[in-house]
Amino acid sequence: MNAWQALTSYLVSVYLFLGCASSTLRGTGDLGLVVEREAGKVALVETSQKTLIKEISGLGDLSHASMVYSRDGRYAFVFGRDGGLTKIDLLKPGIVARVVQAGNSIGGAISEDGQLVAVANYDPGGVKIFSTETLTLLHEIPAKTDRGLSKVVGLVDAPGQKFVFSLWDAGEIWVADCQDRTDVKVSKFAHAGLNPYDGLITANGRYYIAGLFGEDGLALLDLWHLEKGVQKILRDYGKGKEKLPVYKMPHLEGWAMTEEFLFVPAVGSHELLVVDRKNWQIIKRINLFGQPVFAVASPDGRTVWVNFALPHNDRLEIIDVKSLANIKQLVLGKGILHMEFAPKGEQVWISVRDEDRVDIFDSHNFSLLKSIKLAKPSGIFFTARAARIGF
Amino acid sequence: MNAWQALTSYLVSVYLFLGCASSTLRGTGDLGLVVEREAGKVALVETSQKTLIKEISGLGDLSHASMVYSRDGRYAFVFGRDGGLTKIDLLKPGIVARVVQAGNSIGGAISEDGQLVAVANYDPGGVKIFSTETLTLLHEIPAKTDRGLSKVVGLVDAPGQKFVFSLWDAGEIWVADCQDRTDVKVSKFAHAGLNPYDGLITANGRYYIAGLFGEDGLALLDLWHLEKGVQKILRDYGKGKEKLPVYKMPHLEGWAMTEEFLFVPAVGSHELLVVDRKNWQIIKRINLFGQPVFAVASPDGRTVWVNFALPHNDRLEIIDVKSLANIKQLVLGKGILHMEFAPKGEQVWISVRDEDRVDIFDSHNFSLLKSIKLAKPSGIFFTARAARIGF
Repeated sequence: MNAWQALTSYLVSVYLFLGCASSTLRGTGDLGLVVEREAGKVALVETSQKTLIKEISGLGDLSHASMVYSRDGRYAFVFGRDGGLTKIDLLKPGIVARVVQAGNSIGGAISEDGQLVAVANYDPGGVKIFSTETLTLLHEIPAKTDRGLSKVVGLVDAPGQKFVFSLWDAGEIWVADCQDRTDVKVSKFAHAGLNPYDGLITANGRYYIAGLFGEDGLALLDLWHLEKGVQKILRDYGKGKEKLPVYKMPHLEGWAMTEEFLFVPAVGSHELLVVDRKNWQIIKRINLFGQPVFAVASPDGRTVWVNFALPHNDRLEIIDVKSLANIKQLVLGKGILHMEFAPKGEQVWISVRDEDRVDIFDSHNFSLLKSIKLAKPSGIFFTARAARIGF
Repeated sequence: MNAWQALTSYLVSVYLFLGCASSTLRGTGDLGLVVEREAGKVALVETSQKTLIKEISGLGDLSHASMVYSRDGRYAFVFGRDGGLTKIDLLKPGIVARVVQAGNSIGGAISEDGQLVAVANYDPGGVKIFSTETLTLLHEIPAKTDRGLSKVVGLVDAPGQKFVFSLWDAGEIWVADCQDRTDVKVSKFAHAGLNPYDGLITANGRYYIAGLFGEDGLALLDLWHLEKGVQKILRDYGKGKEKLPVYKMPHLEGWAMTEEFLFVPAVGSHELLVVDRKNWQIIKRINLFGQPVFAVASPDGRTVWVNFALPHNDRLEIIDVKSLANIKQLVLGKGILHMEFAPKGEQVWISVRDEDRVDIFDSHNFSLLKSIKLAKPSGIFFTARAARIGF
């Protein structure tokens, strides 16, 4: 070996060493990202040892940010409020690609086969569909009706390579079938309701439900029976009650679904509505400490965890599903913004923004397992979402 | 750099190169293992490109083998018929650890927190609990009653760090609470039924159901109401019918669960029973081409795929859940042993043993997407099971 070979060999070994060191060989099933909104960062965490792995910066405006995961669990697609769509690698932690694809966005979804990522845009109103591999724009669906371009909300994936979403201004629900990428077919359902503001889909991808800001009730579309069109459910939702000022709109994604019930945080009142999933009727109104924002069920369906708008955003209430009674209140500090359960449900992560902390609780005995310091944490998203329809 | 340094550097670079090459940095969410029974091997596959990555040998007797995954999706724990418990690394494909922990075993489960792996043993009859980290034996539960040691079957994990299992000889169902590892508490339910032969747990971990070989009906334990004890359901299951010889016992894990229904392959008759989950009553008996073995629902709950015992093990029948009608028959070749859906359901993998082939179908339009050559494939297990209770 001459000096040149030796030097080359040395440099190769250093390169390979660095190459190996900067990327950790590990499973991705126990990973997650926590949004640190004010810093424009996300924090990579893992739930087995409950640790922070690394912070990743440069994501722009992360207010109201959400994300979805690639089917292998390695990449996240982060939807920023500023129209930014950022692809993040969790194994070589950092940004792989980023496009600012609109002026104002509100979430997105990943297709059943994992090859398409769709973004719901306010400005210009519509949906853009990108390749998950490259973030290349593949298709645009302007939300154009005789009312002009609508803001798009409540975008979710559905079985059969579909995306479902709502048009805020036009009051419509659209279903885009992307089975044939060169010929995306859009089915449009007009008169869905006044100002749909968010949407969700049930775990098997059958029912799409949109919340309505402009009228009482909710819009329901049964994807197994599109011929039935949109039905109105929970028509008395909110009626006959003195309405309180709404400090924060409940997110529909935060509705809790258990085997029997749908738990709906009532808009502007101190109540959690218990809805029978068989007939979509309210069977009980559970009194709460404040105006609910998220209601999240534990994966075993035993409890529903509720957080609140100001001035009660320093606590959680826990509802027992068997008795439909409040069984616990946890006061953790100001700015409790989000809860995320580990896939099998033994632990729940809770962001306490104003305390710069994520608290991890045992979901069965409500004991604090650990806290992680993070800068103004908000949304928490675990990779197990990759395997679930509508997440 | 002298010659010695050069040589060292060279060797280090080779070592690092091999180190990097033998372990691929990749997400684990789209991985799976297929059992190649006769060769004592498992085949590592991935569902994004639909390829075989590597075969891993040295697993002993894999007849009736099953497996569970670590919570990060990196490791599989394979339960062999010969009592072998083998820990497999999917990222550096190979065997990490292996113990032959009993003379005869029949499956196992991983705890809610991912730290314990439990094995159901025939001989000696009982359950052994190991550390998932090291495969160190942590605890033994001999299945001892006044009838002596029973064979253990139908072992599943349940929320609250529990394992639930059935005693074949004693006709009991036991619940082991491993919350405190130094003081495992076992609740025993006697008179559960004659010869329970397998068990399953519903998706939220609430209902444990054991199939009974010695009598009609099934044993149901509601884990939310242990005080109610074991109830008998589907008492008329199989009654009033001329019984055919049973060529292969249907597996309970293969029962299909959708939002409304439980689909039960009838033992020894050409029928799929449709059971209403509200009251556990049979609402329809669907005629089939042969004696069913597995009935597996697609994740969207639209279809149920059924395979058969001899002499009809060359085909599948597909049932439409909306109409409860047979809508398709696929003839693929002899020895169709198992079906596994990708987590969101767009593709289904089917092992065709005697053709040495795994066929991958589009679950929506029933078209063949790809075939992979494998030696006598049987069970197929994807890593998404790690995030599900009872898998």
